[in-house]
Parts: sequence; C-alpha cells; structure tokens
Amino acid sequence: MKQIPEPTKRRLVQLSSLLSQQQEERITSKTIQSLTGWSDSLIRRDILTLGYKGGVSNGYKVKELYDAICAEFGIAKTTNCKKNCCIVGLGRLGAALLENSLFENSAFTVVAGFDSNVNRTEILRSTFPLYPASKMETVIAEKKIEFAILSVPEKDAQKMADRLALCGIKGIVNYTNQVLTLPKSVAVENVSPVTALTNVAAEAANI
Amino acid sequence: MKQIPEPTKRRLVQLSSLLSQQQEERITSKTIQSLTGWSDSLIRRDILTLGYKGGVSNGYKVKELYDAICAEFGIAKTTNCKKNCCIVGLGRLGAALLENSLFENSAFTVVAGFDSNVNRTEILRSTFPLYPASKMETVIAEKKIEFAILSVPEKDAQKMADRLALCGIKGIVNYTNQVLTLPKSVAVENVSPVTALTNVAAEAANI
Repeated sequence: MKQIPEPTKRRLVQLSSLLSQQQEERITSKTIQSLTGWSDSLIRRDILTLGYKGGVSNGYKVKELYDAICAEFGIAKTTNCKKNCCIVGLGRLGAALLENSLFENSAFTVVAGFDSNVNRTEILRSTFPLYPASKMETVIAEKKIEFAILSVPEKDAQKMADRLALCGIKGIVNYTNQVLTLPKSVAVENVSPVTALTNVAAEAANI
Repeated sequence: MKQIPEPTKRRLVQLSSLLSQQQEERITSKTIQSLTGWSDSLIRRDILTLGYKGGVSNGYKVKELYDAICAEFGIAKTTNCKKNCCIVGLGRLGAALLENSLFENSAFTVVAGFDSNVNRTEILRSTFPLYPASKMETVIAEKKIEFAILSVPEKDAQKMADRLALCGIKGIVNYTNQVLTLPKSVAVENVSPVTALTNVAAEAANI
C-alpha cells in the first residue's frame, strides 16, 4: 500500500467523519475549508494523495469521496463489518467509556471490557460483557478483537500492552501517560489528556 | 519559529515524556529505539530537526535534550509556570478527568470545570472549582486559562468551541466526535475514542 504522510492521513480521517455528517450530495474544497480551517489547496492535495480523482469544479461527490477514504484506511461502514474492540482498565476513565453511545455510528464495536479488579467487572454496568483481566487472552481470541483502548493505571500500562501485543492486537489507543514500547506490528495512538494537551500546546506555539 | 513537521513534533513530544521518566544521565538513539520502536536514524533526524546538536557517540544528555524539547514546544517544567487548563462538559467522560492525578508531574494544571447543568457542578467533587457554563467567559479571563478539554455532548461541541475561541483559548483537546470549525489561531487535537480508534486502524492498515 502506498505510504500516505501522517498529517494527510489524520486530515482525511477527520474528513471522513465530517463527510458522514453531510446532508448535501456534493461538497467543494471551499466548503471543507470553511468547516475545517484547512486551506482548500491543502484539501485538494490531500484528496489527490488518496488517488481519488472524482473532483470537478462543482465539488466532490460526498458519498464517493467518503467511500474512497474508508476503502483506503479500512474504515468499516456497515454494521456487519465493524471492527471489534475492547477496553482494558475500568477505572474512572475506562468506566466512562462504557457509554456505548460514544461508539454509535462508528466503524467500531466494543465487545468486551477487562479489569484486574473483579469487583469492578461485577459491579459496573455495560451493554457488553466485562471480564477479569486473567481471561484477556482467551476472550480476545474468541471474539476476534482487533483493537484495544488502554486505560489502566500508568504503572500497569506496559505490562498490559505487552500482553495485548502477544494476543495479536493490531492497534492500541493509549489513554495512559506511559510511553509504550511495542513491536512494529502494533499501531499506537497516544491520547492521554496530558499527551493531548502537550500536542495542542506544541501546535499552538507553532501557530 | 521554524516549522517542524507534525509527525516529528509528535515523536519529540512523546520523547520528552519518555526522557522525564529516565533515571540515567545519558541516553543513546539505540536505547530510544528499543523503548519507542522508532528507528535510531529517524530519532537522530528528529533531534537534528530540533536544532539540538549535543549528541555524541555515547548518547544524548537526558536533561539537556529534555530541556531543548521543552523550550522548542513551550512545555512548562516547573510548577510556577504551568499552563492553566479547564474541562468543559462534566458528563461521564469529563467527570472522569476530574481525577487530578492524571495531570500530576505534567506541564498543565486544571483550574476549573464547567457544565451547563448546575446540579453536576454542585454535586461532583474535584480539587478545583466547578462553575456553571454561563460563567465560562469570566472565569477563563480571570484565571488566565489557555487550554480547554472539551467533553460536552456532540450536539453542543461546536457552540462551546466557538465560545472558547472567542475567549481567546489557544488550544482545544476535543474528546467529542464532532469535527470542529475554528479560527486558525486555535489549535485542536482530536482524541475522541472513535477518532483515536480510526487513526490507529488507519495506521495499522499501513503497517
């Protein structure tokens, strides 16, 4: 697969979620500019990088462009090819993610939650089953879970990430401050409040 | 200020948090490679981009390199120059962020929380004051708040982001799925669970 630069990829992923909210049949790069703040020339270049050539002077076809982005990044669109995910760590932050409405209309379904504290897995309410962390390996294999949201305490983060990598997890969304050391085959997105604030502050310093 | 490419910036920000956890005086690019999975040549190039030239064959000085990254991205290191932040929206996710330990040893202090539901601001516990959303403009000015974590319901996200931008907020960490339309002067980091999962899945598809 061709390598798409990371900033372009992030913008296209954002664009796909913007497109999924559009009612109109067509959208111009000018309109996308007014909605996102990215310049229209940058938007057109990003879309070219994707290899999508459907744009004409009266705009891109919303559905076609959306499909092209989804196809490129393996974003599932229909319910029967959603990607299975799990939440590892059900402390305050992890438990807040048990709200299923967060994942509605997305390409992902959370099918399991794990915590090493059995009280939590028994007491917390969710629309999907919660398991003790000791069952992680079995459940991930059985339910064909591909992605994990990691929200354990910082001191346990690396250990849990190692176990997830051994299970063959494809990607981890890391809500902890721990910098994870993982094999190249596991993608990581660092989104702890502190990492996100640091990134946004670094970006603001560059504006 | 020189423009540092976004992927380099993200790696350097991650590296700064890794360095802050190191006990050793020196660190080599090989060690950083083993901890992060990035190749040592990429790491050396990133550090050169920063303009830091202190690396020798026996490694970088941890403290010097850390200081250089912090200086470049305006990452505050000491308690008296921490950046003030607020949390906007105290639903399940926002309330989970009221745990102050999340921000310990970071460059940020959360000094206020806001919600349009006054019951929430009165009932929730936190180590910093919570206010009704109607007081947002006043409190942000008074407390010199620079950054905001946005965790309101999706339908209110744009409206709140507009108000934050008018207050002169420098950056928003967006925990909602809404694609925000903001002036160029406001930096945004999109870290909702769905956005993060989509980014990690797109990255995994590229591995």
